[in-house]
Amino acid sequence: MSPRSSRPVILTGDRTTGPLHLGHYVGSLRNRVALQYSHEQYVLLADTQALTDNANDPGKVRRNVIEVALDYLAVGIAPSVSTICVQSALPALAELTLLYLNFVSVARLERNPTIKDEIQARGFGRDIPAGFLCYPAAQAADITAFKASVVPVGEDQAPIIEQTNEIVRRINRQVGRTLLPEARALIPASGRLPGVDGKEKMSKSQGNAIPLSASDDDIALAVQRMYTDPDHLRAADPGRVEGNVVFTYLDAFDPDVDAVAALKAEYRRGGLGDMVLKRRLAGILQDTIAPIRERRAALAKDPDTILDILRAGTARGRGLTEQTKAEVIDGLGLFRL
Amino acid sequence: MSPRSSRPVILTGDRTTGPLHLGHYVGSLRNRVALQYSHEQYVLLADTQALTDNANDPGKVRRNVIEVALDYLAVGIAPSVSTICVQSALPALAELTLLYLNFVSVARLERNPTIKDEIQARGFGRDIPAGFLCYPAAQAADITAFKASVVPVGEDQAPIIEQTNEIVRRINRQVGRTLLPEARALIPASGRLPGVDGKEKMSKSQGNAIPLSASDDDIALAVQRMYTDPDHLRAADPGRVEGNVVFTYLDAFDPDVDAVAALKAEYRRGGLGDMVLKRRLAGILQDTIAPIRERRAALAKDPDTILDILRAGTARGRGLTEQTKAEVIDGLGLFRL
Repeated sequence: MSPRSSRPVILTGDRTTGPLHLGHYVGSLRNRVALQYSHEQYVLLADTQALTDNANDPGKVRRNVIEVALDYLAVGIAPSVSTICVQSALPALAELTLLYLNFVSVARLERNPTIKDEIQARGFGRDIPAGFLCYPAAQAADITAFKASVVPVGEDQAPIIEQTNEIVRRINRQVGRTLLPEARALIPASGRLPGVDGKEKMSKSQGNAIPLSASDDDIALAVQRMYTDPDHLRAADPGRVEGNVVFTYLDAFDPDVDAVAALKAEYRRGGLGDMVLKRRLAGILQDTIAPIRERRAALAKDPDTILDILRAGTARGRGLTEQTKAEVIDGLGLFRL
Repeated sequence: MSPRSSRPVILTGDRTTGPLHLGHYVGSLRNRVALQYSHEQYVLLADTQALTDNANDPGKVRRNVIEVALDYLAVGIAPSVSTICVQSALPALAELTLLYLNFVSVARLERNPTIKDEIQARGFGRDIPAGFLCYPAAQAADITAFKASVVPVGEDQAPIIEQTNEIVRRINRQVGRTLLPEARALIPASGRLPGVDGKEKMSKSQGNAIPLSASDDDIALAVQRMYTDPDHLRAADPGRVEGNVVFTYLDAFDPDVDAVAALKAEYRRGGLGDMVLKRRLAGILQDTIAPIRERRAALAKDPDTILDILRAGTARGRGLTEQTKAEVIDGLGLFRL
């Protein structure tokens, strides 16, 4: 195994439940492309975690391992600098998860605000799968197995990092030294991209998402239907910028910040029609997605290369995670055959 | 890997929290010695499970892996016919556990009578470690990974087998065929050996146990202090046989059933003193334990041989459990790199 670099270690990844979309691109993917050169970055195809609320549809979880891997490579996550691993192919993660479950109480897991919110969002009630309740311990295993000190997460996931650090402190206390590093949540400055319908979250299941494989026509149509200011009926009228999805997207994607500021001022005064703005946005999104879509289509024709990349990344991940597991076992003074 | 025999597969084992004692010998060890010739028997040194309520003392769990292995070999569990494995050295068990946790609800785990009783016995209350709540899924992983159809358990553990079979049916339904066999609880006819103080359960922590390493003097002393009939003050008085620990032990250990029946009749009539009975019992227990103690002491001098036996058994167990894991992953249609 190659020696660890001195760059800070980042762990990131996605549940493999569907291809990624523009919301992922803004919220995480483009940050990963930037961070991979300054950090030692591990990207987890989280199929084990995806199963915690998709046990009825394992086929979906399987298919999307490759779909999400294609998204990663298409946006520019480079296997030469980032390590892409398949979570289910790293047994040490399961072993550390079971170990950590002994260091956290059921009551503590149930108090986790992220878990509480997600149980409600999924309508699980009392029928919550045990695996779902336990997933914060699994995330602690993921983060610590790679000894990650930086974990990019949405704001709603910050309690998971706190939970991880509680387990880290508990293990370190028992071992008697700082075996595992605490992790810091890296919450993206850009915030979350709303759906094209203006709803808070872009989501494939909500039908308000633009996938990274969208064609120019798909994009034009999605932008045309985009929510703006419902009271802005004629171009000559003053319009609202706040909550206007087209401006939110221009803020996220238009590289010409000054031009966007000028457009906002003009829109507020009146005299700027939605169609002009939407044409501008559609063009920018088409320019953003076209090269991703084309790389994605080219890569999809060569599944063997994708599998080779996943095998190489996972082999590297296996070395690291097995090493951490052995250190934890020895540190705690457990039996090792 | 050698082909599976046609003998029924038994999975059994012990949590590695302390050396075994006469209660284990009567309740399970001597049955294993008998069953190993008619069954394909796997014996698990359950250090991972031991940790679910011993996270504060991993050193105890480690040390007792070897202590319990010594007990196994000393009583006659033969590595030539039984496969002795270290649970923590079989990663497929952890992976199957995490998988199965998605197929059982938190509410179902909390309703498990064994878990309920044990939570109460340990005084966990709301602070129950998550790993402890999850251990029925871990036992389902153990049982199914070896495709065991027979699981010797105490009566109080029968609900764990029912829980396992629920998971088995759920997985088989999703796979669409009988991939995993259901298991049958084998509850020993002999019942449970009480402690020397007459308490229901012999337990090292209760101080009422006779360890398999006990010397002749230890045994004589323990028998001398044994609970009989508190109202049987003089040998000439009639005495009670029911609840009289000396008779319970004679029933469990004395090979001469007719002689024991005659002693019971005499004791009931009056005229048989406790000391006569206790001398008989002490002699029988000394004869039972002496060869075990001596083999144990000889084996303990050669730790390398013990480790070699554990390595060979665990390697065989690894082949089997990895194969079952792969079958479950493929059967469910999950991703396999």
